[in-house]
Amino acid sequence: MRQLKLSQAFTLLESGPVVLVTTHDGRKNNIMTISWTMVLDFTPMFAITTGEWNHSFAALRRNRECVIAIPTVDLLDRVVGIGTCSGADTDKFAKFGLTPVAGRLVKAPLIKQCLANIECKVVDIVKRHNIVVLQGVAAYVDPTRKERRTVHAVGDGRFIADGRTLDRRKMMASKIPDGS
Amino acid sequence: MRQLKLSQAFTLLESGPVVLVTTHDGRKNNIMTISWTMVLDFTPMFAITTGEWNHSFAALRRNRECVIAIPTVDLLDRVVGIGTCSGADTDKFAKFGLTPVAGRLVKAPLIKQCLANIECKVVDIVKRHNIVVLQGVAAYVDPTRKERRTVHAVGDGRFIADGRTLDRRKMMASKIPDGS
Repeated sequence: MRQLKLSQAFTLLESGPVVLVTTHDGRKNNIMTISWTMVLDFTPMFAITTGEWNHSFAALRRNRECVIAIPTVDLLDRVVGIGTCSGADTDKFAKFGLTPVAGRLVKAPLIKQCLANIECKVVDIVKRHNIVVLQGVAAYVDPTRKERRTVHAVGDGRFIADGRTLDRRKMMASKIPDGS
Repeated sequence: MRQLKLSQAFTLLESGPVVLVTTHDGRKNNIMTISWTMVLDFTPMFAITTGEWNHSFAALRRNRECVIAIPTVDLLDRVVGIGTCSGADTDKFAKFGLTPVAGRLVKAPLIKQCLANIECKVVDIVKRHNIVVLQGVAAYVDPTRKERRTVHAVGDGRFIADGRTLDRRKMMASKIPDGS
């Protein structure tokens, strides 16, 4: 995986793909599937919605670290599988044939099979809305991957793969931050 | 526009499309383009990231109402245009040939040309993260529209249109809320 400039890392989440969030609770790795994410700023800061209903939340709250991994459409069945079982009784890396890779700044693992990974620190938890606020501290993209289409949940069991890319960089020039 | 059950309204935002957010400040309508949105729950509650840098924020904070309108790919140039000028000196409905339609529960207008519209009340503003928390109170979809592909910002001036839909409703059955 090749390191990506932190100023570009928000572009990995801006389009709203389904992501995998890994945690390490001191003993074990875990993964959850999350669709409810949002960019908060370009530094980058991110928000995710999660809470007690996710087994990973305890590790996130205690260790205040995670990795946001971006899967592509070829991984969809594993993404759905990860989202429909619990880390309480399942080693999801083993069950879904995924390879944890050590990060540089957090103990939560990157996922080798994903298109991109972002190491994150928890900077705040807005309890009344179940919002966890994350600061991205390192980002990586796999430049060798052929399949690069991410996937977007509809919320009813259907998913939408990325289609055509439309270039509006000229029209958007005034709004694009430097360095991205 | 046909009314959509509120329990299904979260599916309009779950995939992370670029949206238009309308406000009414007591005198004038305005529209902003927003890519930073997130579902918070199925009731539905939504989060959007915005602040003083958007002219619409003053109306949102004061009147505590808005409409989230979901445009499709055929409207992309208008969506980008709306995002790169300011309501401070522009009547965006007039400039971009969009038609405001009165909602039922809020004074902010629906946008006739959009695929879907969600009337929302502001329930909280988390100032330290520039997060506005919205409760969806009514939702509508245009069933007659041929073009139904939404569009996702990459953040660098490029946009991704919806591609293929993949059906995982059977695998996801345990996770799909009733009524959707």
